[in-house]
Amino acid sequence: MRASRFLLATLRETPADAVVISHQLMLRAGLIRKVGTGLYNWLPLGLRVLQKVERIVREEMNRSGALEVLMPVTQPAELWEESGRYVQYGAELLRFKDRHQANFVLGPTHEEVITDLARNELQSYKQLPVNFYQIQTKFRDEIRPRFGVMRSREFIMKDAYSFHANQASLQETYDVMYDTYCRIFSRIGVDFRPVQADTGSIGGDGSHEFHVLAESGEDLIAFSDTSNYAANIEMAEAICTSQRPAASQVMQSVDTPNAHSIAEVCEFLKVDASQTVKTLIVRGKADDKGQYGLVALVLRGDHELNDIKAEKLAQVGSPLTFASEADVLAAVGCHVGSIGPQGLTIPVLVDRSAAALADFVAGANVDGKHVTGLNWERDAQMTAIVDIRNVVAGDPSPDGQGKLVLKRGIEVGHIFQLGKKYSQALNCTVLGEDGKPFVVTMGCYGIGVTRVVASAIEQNYDERGIIWPDAIAPFHIALVPMNWAKSQRIQEESQKLYEQLTAAGFDVFYDDRNERPGVKFADAELIGIPHRLVMGEKGLDAGTIEYKGRRDSESQDIAYSDLINFLKEKIKI
Amino acid sequence: MRASRFLLATLRETPADAVVISHQLMLRAGLIRKVGTGLYNWLPLGLRVLQKVERIVREEMNRSGALEVLMPVTQPAELWEESGRYVQYGAELLRFKDRHQANFVLGPTHEEVITDLARNELQSYKQLPVNFYQIQTKFRDEIRPRFGVMRSREFIMKDAYSFHANQASLQETYDVMYDTYCRIFSRIGVDFRPVQADTGSIGGDGSHEFHVLAESGEDLIAFSDTSNYAANIEMAEAICTSQRPAASQVMQSVDTPNAHSIAEVCEFLKVDASQTVKTLIVRGKADDKGQYGLVALVLRGDHELNDIKAEKLAQVGSPLTFASEADVLAAVGCHVGSIGPQGLTIPVLVDRSAAALADFVAGANVDGKHVTGLNWERDAQMTAIVDIRNVVAGDPSPDGQGKLVLKRGIEVGHIFQLGKKYSQALNCTVLGEDGKPFVVTMGCYGIGVTRVVASAIEQNYDERGIIWPDAIAPFHIALVPMNWAKSQRIQEESQKLYEQLTAAGFDVFYDDRNERPGVKFADAELIGIPHRLVMGEKGLDAGTIEYKGRRDSESQDIAYSDLINFLKEKIKI
Repeated sequence: MRASRFLLATLRETPADAVVISHQLMLRAGLIRKVGTGLYNWLPLGLRVLQKVERIVREEMNRSGALEVLMPVTQPAELWEESGRYVQYGAELLRFKDRHQANFVLGPTHEEVITDLARNELQSYKQLPVNFYQIQTKFRDEIRPRFGVMRSREFIMKDAYSFHANQASLQETYDVMYDTYCRIFSRIGVDFRPVQADTGSIGGDGSHEFHVLAESGEDLIAFSDTSNYAANIEMAEAICTSQRPAASQVMQSVDTPNAHSIAEVCEFLKVDASQTVKTLIVRGKADDKGQYGLVALVLRGDHELNDIKAEKLAQVGSPLTFASEADVLAAVGCHVGSIGPQGLTIPVLVDRSAAALADFVAGANVDGKHVTGLNWERDAQMTAIVDIRNVVAGDPSPDGQGKLVLKRGIEVGHIFQLGKKYSQALNCTVLGEDGKPFVVTMGCYGIGVTRVVASAIEQNYDERGIIWPDAIAPFHIALVPMNWAKSQRIQEESQKLYEQLTAAGFDVFYDDRNERPGVKFADAELIGIPHRLVMGEKGLDAGTIEYKGRRDSESQDIAYSDLINFLKEKIKI
Repeated sequence: MRASRFLLATLRETPADAVVISHQLMLRAGLIRKVGTGLYNWLPLGLRVLQKVERIVREEMNRSGALEVLMPVTQPAELWEESGRYVQYGAELLRFKDRHQANFVLGPTHEEVITDLARNELQSYKQLPVNFYQIQTKFRDEIRPRFGVMRSREFIMKDAYSFHANQASLQETYDVMYDTYCRIFSRIGVDFRPVQADTGSIGGDGSHEFHVLAESGEDLIAFSDTSNYAANIEMAEAICTSQRPAASQVMQSVDTPNAHSIAEVCEFLKVDASQTVKTLIVRGKADDKGQYGLVALVLRGDHELNDIKAEKLAQVGSPLTFASEADVLAAVGCHVGSIGPQGLTIPVLVDRSAAALADFVAGANVDGKHVTGLNWERDAQMTAIVDIRNVVAGDPSPDGQGKLVLKRGIEVGHIFQLGKKYSQALNCTVLGEDGKPFVVTMGCYGIGVTRVVASAIEQNYDERGIIWPDAIAPFHIALVPMNWAKSQRIQEESQKLYEQLTAAGFDVFYDDRNERPGVKFADAELIGIPHRLVMGEKGLDAGTIEYKGRRDSESQDIAYSDLINFLKEKIKI
């Protein structure tokens, strides 16, 4: 591409409303422009990156045997009523009426449409397994769109949906998708981790998220420092390997005036938070009539409650709801801040680490008082020992190998064993070997294509701009001719080289603009072109050209005769 | 692609609601499936075709120097308010509110968004000309979606918008786009015509439609049988080369009881319709206060009024509105069906062909009476001679070469010199050479990508199914192994050939299904694969394979050793 015929829309200033680095650099480098809240134009430079990501995704999905389809953005509300999500989905589902007052939605996802397609097109178990995918525009009416294309309202996803005769077949395709996703993100060139993820109301172990590691990530991921174990913090199991010591202290009640929080109590009593417990009173699971009791959740003072783990407990209601001040007072006899597990008449669910304490501190169930030297069984009863806390760095890895490290990640992919949730709701059946219809088992597999672009930047930038991985760079090489405007020789030689490089399969940004070299260098660095060639008269005389990788501190002179081979070695397309 | 791993969704029956052949065959061959009114899923087979069309369009647009962008489906209403179209566009523009009650539209087209982009990104005349395009999903809330993807609500368009310093630059890009469109439709392999089209309220000559010729086309196109002249019938100039003969008859009033229509009058008076005139009373152009007079439009009895031509006349109001019965009675003194041009006190605009008549028949301006032997000037006055009729087959071509032939066409592309309509409304200016801002001049260029697929079928089918042009065929070759299930040798040899053909660059449908040959042949013909190879044991013994083109009546045996060359000759990818 000749720079003079391209729309280079670089900005000197960072727009004020861009908070994260990828959003700032996508605006500054001229990849995207805002059209409205959470709505973006992809400029020529950005679209080149997006299309390279799409191409890799498409090639690998095809290689996996998945069949590409294309479903509409606009979906009839009837299908969403069948699945129950027309009501359940909440305000992110944009609902509208057409000119005939019929109800439609803008599709945030396509489970309903694909299940409808499958129930119409699939007749026999012989047609299974089958995996359909699309790369397509979606809409989610985010209450607060932010971070540019990272959390926009309109975005492009690769979504795939597989159909199976049984769980074993689903697991097989799921494993293929797992490998496919690893290949996709490896080819794109980002540092990523597949992590175990929560399966929400579906249950089971069949869900992995794919995260690009970046400090700006919204998700916290726990890894083993030794093994392959990785899980979203929502999901990571908290192991307690320490044995409870024998009781050595007598339980004593002490006055703790104005000490409510764990920090205040620790300060006052001069103990470490790890030697205290906090007792949280939440609503239990409601019965058929909507009546619920209360449940006590006990954690070590230095640990955090993991809502998702708590919600999965049989005794606890979902969504997790804390008891009201009045309910607590009625059940425990004191205010929040002075509760302890001893003598409670409601179920007491104790986190593994809290259960391993002896001689610990807790609230006294009397306002303004705590107890010290508390011991389980002797002073307080546990209904059950459970895992309800977030893991912390240094926790043992749940697979028994090494310790956990925490890092932030950006979720760019998610694979999920759906089971029969949608096939049951929409009655998607095929005939089995025995001639009888059965409900198919489903999996779904998503990649946030537009988000991948932003995440690649979050991981690859410096103070001068973006540093694209070769495979998704809008251009592989910036060809900068020195003294271009004045030297006929440079014009001719650079044009010749441009054509050679293009013929060799490289995407070249041929900077034929009438600008100073400094401007050209700065633009090439800002837009993140990973390789740069500078052609000057001296080099031409010597038969060399100056090469510099985007991450290199020094440039080097490459013999002209060896250039193409050198670049083919360097650039991994 | 192995057939056993593909979703072949062919139907035996034609769905009842499909009227046109392309819709029928797209359903029967399993290219698309209906999701809702005017909403379709593209199945794997159909998407392969759609993507090949897209690829050709993209390659040729890139070659033309246009820059690809991607704009959102969802557009803020503010931009449409700026252009005035938020109100003007009518019910086809789907308007909706987001969760914050802000107004949006689903984009049926992107003039507003691109002009907004251009006014923000273009600063100087030096950045002109520039041509942006996208291949993107659009929505038009058709009152009566029909003919499958030919007139659906959600569809894919290639739309391009160019920006210029002046008309000469626009004309240059327009000409490039004209040539680009010709290359695109030639490469796709459809029989098409660029035709002059109406420019609506913009005026000027700068508009061409590209039509795929097909009997089912909604548009009527007029061609010269000798020259390159072609125009949409809306636009084609009606030439009258005959001179008006001298008057030879006396004007006489005759009773014509119950004869109101031209046909009835001709039957009653035993004259040919070409020797009569019909006089239509329409509203004239309204003045500032909305007051309008009436105007008489006179055509030969066998000719049809062309509304668009009439609307362009200075004296006639737009949209064309016929006078009410009461207005006619007040102005002329009789009912519609008995009006004649003689003695009218309102402007009388006479079509060229009607003006060339002598001794003709017209209404007598008295109910139940007509006049014969009417002659212009002697008996009736003309305010002006105008072109207000549709051309008919046999009319002289307006370029003076040959006669007009009429054919039906499907509009698949449209190029248009927009001028300053949107750039003025949105104040899209750049700085000129003199340092002063000026409003840019625009062109726009559309191709209905999804519609191209349907139009190719309308032109290429037989009683057995679709016959794809090679360039957009979902598969170039159907490879049908005989006795596949039982012969190890056939399995091995066909697998080997499949790999060879694929390596040679062909898309092969390798029919490894356990089905009878008849079923495989019928499927390959229905889905329109243009070339077929049948592998049998006898052929293998003889070193030959059976080839049949989809339009061939007979198959032929090709030497195995020569096969790849033979196919490369045959198949134009």
